[in-house]
Amino acid sequence: MSDTSPQNDALELLCINTIRTLSIDAVQKANSGHPGAPMALAPAAYTLWTKIMRYNPRNPSWFNRDRFILSNGHASMLLYAMLYLTGYDLSLDDIKNFRQLKSKTPGHPENILTPGVETTTGPLGQGIMNAVGMAIAEAHLAATFNRKGHEIINHYTYAFCSDGDFMEGASHEAASLAGHLGLSKLIFLYDDNHISIEGQTEIAYTDDVKTRFEAYHWHVQDIGDNANDVGALSQAFSNARQEKDRPSIIIVRSHIGYGSPSFQDTPDAHGAPLGEDEAARTKRVYGWPEHEKFLVPENALEYMQKAVERGIRYEDEWNKQCASYRQAFPDAALQLDTALRNELPKGWDKGIPEFAPSDGPLATRSASGKVINAFAEHVPYVVGGSADLAPSNNSLIKTTDYFGKGRYENRNIAWGVREHAMCSCSSGMALHGGIRPFAATFFVFTDYARPAIRLAALMGLPVIYVMTHDSIGLGEDGPTHQPIEHLASLRAIPNLYVIRPADANEVAFAWQVALMRTTGPTMLVLTRQKLSVLDRTIYAPAEGALNGAYILSKEKGSVPDIVLLATGSEVELILKAQDNLANEGIDARVVSMPSWELFKDQSPAYRDEVLPPATTVRLAVEAGSPLGWRDWVGDAGDIMGITTFGASAPYKELFKQYGFTVDSVVLRARKLLKK
Amino acid sequence: MSDTSPQNDALELLCINTIRTLSIDAVQKANSGHPGAPMALAPAAYTLWTKIMRYNPRNPSWFNRDRFILSNGHASMLLYAMLYLTGYDLSLDDIKNFRQLKSKTPGHPENILTPGVETTTGPLGQGIMNAVGMAIAEAHLAATFNRKGHEIINHYTYAFCSDGDFMEGASHEAASLAGHLGLSKLIFLYDDNHISIEGQTEIAYTDDVKTRFEAYHWHVQDIGDNANDVGALSQAFSNARQEKDRPSIIIVRSHIGYGSPSFQDTPDAHGAPLGEDEAARTKRVYGWPEHEKFLVPENALEYMQKAVERGIRYEDEWNKQCASYRQAFPDAALQLDTALRNELPKGWDKGIPEFAPSDGPLATRSASGKVINAFAEHVPYVVGGSADLAPSNNSLIKTTDYFGKGRYENRNIAWGVREHAMCSCSSGMALHGGIRPFAATFFVFTDYARPAIRLAALMGLPVIYVMTHDSIGLGEDGPTHQPIEHLASLRAIPNLYVIRPADANEVAFAWQVALMRTTGPTMLVLTRQKLSVLDRTIYAPAEGALNGAYILSKEKGSVPDIVLLATGSEVELILKAQDNLANEGIDARVVSMPSWELFKDQSPAYRDEVLPPATTVRLAVEAGSPLGWRDWVGDAGDIMGITTFGASAPYKELFKQYGFTVDSVVLRARKLLKK
Repeated sequence: MSDTSPQNDALELLCINTIRTLSIDAVQKANSGHPGAPMALAPAAYTLWTKIMRYNPRNPSWFNRDRFILSNGHASMLLYAMLYLTGYDLSLDDIKNFRQLKSKTPGHPENILTPGVETTTGPLGQGIMNAVGMAIAEAHLAATFNRKGHEIINHYTYAFCSDGDFMEGASHEAASLAGHLGLSKLIFLYDDNHISIEGQTEIAYTDDVKTRFEAYHWHVQDIGDNANDVGALSQAFSNARQEKDRPSIIIVRSHIGYGSPSFQDTPDAHGAPLGEDEAARTKRVYGWPEHEKFLVPENALEYMQKAVERGIRYEDEWNKQCASYRQAFPDAALQLDTALRNELPKGWDKGIPEFAPSDGPLATRSASGKVINAFAEHVPYVVGGSADLAPSNNSLIKTTDYFGKGRYENRNIAWGVREHAMCSCSSGMALHGGIRPFAATFFVFTDYARPAIRLAALMGLPVIYVMTHDSIGLGEDGPTHQPIEHLASLRAIPNLYVIRPADANEVAFAWQVALMRTTGPTMLVLTRQKLSVLDRTIYAPAEGALNGAYILSKEKGSVPDIVLLATGSEVELILKAQDNLANEGIDARVVSMPSWELFKDQSPAYRDEVLPPATTVRLAVEAGSPLGWRDWVGDAGDIMGITTFGASAPYKELFKQYGFTVDSVVLRARKLLKK
Repeated sequence: MSDTSPQNDALELLCINTIRTLSIDAVQKANSGHPGAPMALAPAAYTLWTKIMRYNPRNPSWFNRDRFILSNGHASMLLYAMLYLTGYDLSLDDIKNFRQLKSKTPGHPENILTPGVETTTGPLGQGIMNAVGMAIAEAHLAATFNRKGHEIINHYTYAFCSDGDFMEGASHEAASLAGHLGLSKLIFLYDDNHISIEGQTEIAYTDDVKTRFEAYHWHVQDIGDNANDVGALSQAFSNARQEKDRPSIIIVRSHIGYGSPSFQDTPDAHGAPLGEDEAARTKRVYGWPEHEKFLVPENALEYMQKAVERGIRYEDEWNKQCASYRQAFPDAALQLDTALRNELPKGWDKGIPEFAPSDGPLATRSASGKVINAFAEHVPYVVGGSADLAPSNNSLIKTTDYFGKGRYENRNIAWGVREHAMCSCSSGMALHGGIRPFAATFFVFTDYARPAIRLAALMGLPVIYVMTHDSIGLGEDGPTHQPIEHLASLRAIPNLYVIRPADANEVAFAWQVALMRTTGPTMLVLTRQKLSVLDRTIYAPAEGALNGAYILSKEKGSVPDIVLLATGSEVELILKAQDNLANEGIDARVVSMPSWELFKDQSPAYRDEVLPPATTVRLAVEAGSPLGWRDWVGDAGDIMGITTFGASAPYKELFKQYGFTVDSVVLRARKLLKK
């Protein structure tokens, strides 16, 4: 047992022990879960939620609420206990259903299932990166919309985080960035419990966290062995809120499994139920009826639920502020409303160019840059940036400057070489609301951000990824920078839409899809190298890209001999092959297929129109892994892809070397037809 | 221009300017590449390679050489210039072929192409993580094999690294771990040039690097604006070598594009040729003939090539040491030789259990733990660990303790929650030689380590990944922890072998494949939940797993009505379905298919034997993304997979919910046959 005896008054202790015992009992009933961290962090959560944080349990989406992120998501029962006790739409029965099918209390917090959960956490490091994104969003919206005497955007973002979060590389990207940006309304509580799954953290991790965060220019408070001291915690949170220049971290030495005679301060308290006997012994330590389960003392519940009336008052006050703001600044209010609804303003696309063949040859990344700058003017809540590759990604919005300390109103974010934080913060921005984020880097470096991209898809967040340099077509930088497996590996992620446009005009429609999609992330996959702008007086309109795949160039006769399919830079190839095949009397259809996911969304009739079931001779051409293409070409078809890594050379030579030439396509088509 | 005028004597300056101008000219000729960093770092490289480092240009694989890693791999011309000038097997013509197809001088350094290049770098952060792995390997081998007076393993690992490396999360994992482990023979030079692609690093990055590394318990020297001072650099490297307790970092404020009148200290010097005119102007600043290209003054070359005689002497001395070691400690010497050849000792597999049905039900992760502990006894150079999940991954070697400061001889590595560093350091250990590394975590967290896994595949490194909790079968932890797309996304990586065994005995053979494979990484994908140990008196021997796929249970007649295929935990399902279908008079074949890659390696005849072309009715069952399965089941087949994310619930309920039951398989098979 630690010497940190509770210094709270009786009612406070009752509330805290209610949180603890609910966590113990829920984990015990589920026969799985993580009791230790909730037992240790109950006083901190209690302090934050009753004395510090502003939120409205009756309206979890009240816009100006403080955000709370449980980055150590395995401690989910802590969050569920808080939500239930403070009066959110989560019942004691929900808690009894912890970790059960279709319950509102899954193993790790999922914002899509549970009112009051701000984001989905569990994979370590994600919560703190999301939190940085939320603080970025708050800073940007405050700088953009607040007026003297009208601070309608004004809230804090709190995150609880663990050793595990802080061992992850993600913590560096998040903390370095937040410190650099001086996000003073971001407050972390670091649960320094000295225990990880394999034992004492000391076996793997001995960072001096205080010094580390000072190096990132954070405001650091180390409050020592005071995890049970509501007064000390409250003071630390207050100090953090007073800090106007830097993000804050409160380091508290806590005791995992606090109160458990056998398991406190051991890994055994981390990820398994205490067991009936130890649960009873622990309750005895708390002065709790040993054999009562899910006991919620009425006065504790009543006291905690005062959050409801506080919350209603906070929101009422804010609504009044907003009304006066609306009157004083009607235009800004309208703009904010549009942003909050994540609605595209009327005429948002009117500046988007229709590209002519004479505008080409043009890399699709360049076309994307032009499109961004066209719509960015009309959609002021689009905010984004690159992981230090803006000139290469063509991702800069030219009418605004870099977002930064003292210039939070700007819309270009210089993420630095932090792909993972970029994508996870972008999720945080989307979760926050009022902002439509996009994130750019080289396509191959999606690998660095995959855990964040996956969670964006899981949460259904409308983040837009602008991924350029999309194949061996990037040339000399070589195999370390050339995506091969990336199209396949990203197409495999549920709810992520991947679009690889074939020319500048398909890019414009790809952006339209991305901006109009509100149920999940969209990834634009763009070339480094220049491509022709297809002559749409000869070929079908680029609007077909909205359907995921479309007949770009029809066969001459009534039935094609062969269907050629491609995406992106390889579409030009199959178009030329079509001509050459025609010279040999072979009548080919050319299908441009920028997005499998969009195509799957179409009616079976449309899909059969584009890929007629009767025409089984099909050839797919894509400069990447062939994985998955068999679904489209069938047994009688063939796939020209790449099954090795790339190489360093000028890209035209590489395309030749890897067999992506008009002649090779013609040869393969001919061979296929002879089968 | 900076005020850091060179203080080297004339010959030294000549050598340094040769490195610089070779870099300028090669980038100019290739018309792409990165001249700025080589121009800035030439003095540091010169100092290290002529005054500090021990290596033998005549034998790049001399085992006790110091390792040099260029983590900022885009500065590849720096490395090529050093290799050429010091007498490695790299010619001036090779340098003239910079970034050309099939040259030995690709855009980013590739160890597989160029003698003397220790690892493949470019994706930022990878080089420094590899370097930490090499230092771990050195420490382990030194602790294991050195004897008093016989320090046969005794070398340093040097890495040059950049702002980009240090912005990546990877840098945190690497530096935190190295500091924790006290790897005193690891020395970083941090090229603090204040410039990144988007501009001054200050727009995105203002860490106090000195303080940050002090927080990691490193020995830090900030030598200020002395990037051109050979004396200061040399002193700093010497100090670092003297430090016996901590890894060292030397921070030097350098000037990207040093000497270029227009581009020094600007992003323009980073990633593009200077242009003919600016190249000439820069040479003028160096006192170099303006219009000479690829000029290598004879005295400079001669002086630098003294590295050859030094190197031969170093290796000769070491060989003598080894001879005396061999005499004094023949057993240890034999063991080291085996390890260096990466050879499995005779009888390495004799302890591997043959599992009986009565040993089950047994999770494949548990079987893996038993197999590890069986062979680890006979293969002492297997060293590995988990990213803080050892008890869950069953990855602990029970006869040894945790590797750590002062106990480097131990073979279990507690990586902490650092999946990325774990995998990249494991690559570094494999590159170093003398060690066969394995790395373990939850399968879903391969996402955190993907850039490292990709590079291991690209380099052909025999790293073994032990990835457990491989599907929705992990149950209550929920969708954030349940792999869906991971099998598909990893199968898409060239040269990575993915094996998902169906029972304990397949696990044993999977480990055999992994240990015998020397040309690339192998990933074992294992269940959390218990599976039956299949009765091999009824079913085919598990040895079939070596072929990637095999007929586990044959049809009754001469031709099957349907082929059922599955991997891992779903094999049990299709076996039961086979019985049920038999009751309905449907004669099914059951194929267990643990590895697509292994199966593709088999002869067409074998593949046709397992999947008879005549039997087009095939049903694949795998609890993951169906992507890619069409290749195996064909147009007439069907795939039972998962195209959404998972959920939090007990796993048996999830399998029901997601349609993975015997009844569903039977139903789908019946439906398919009716088509």
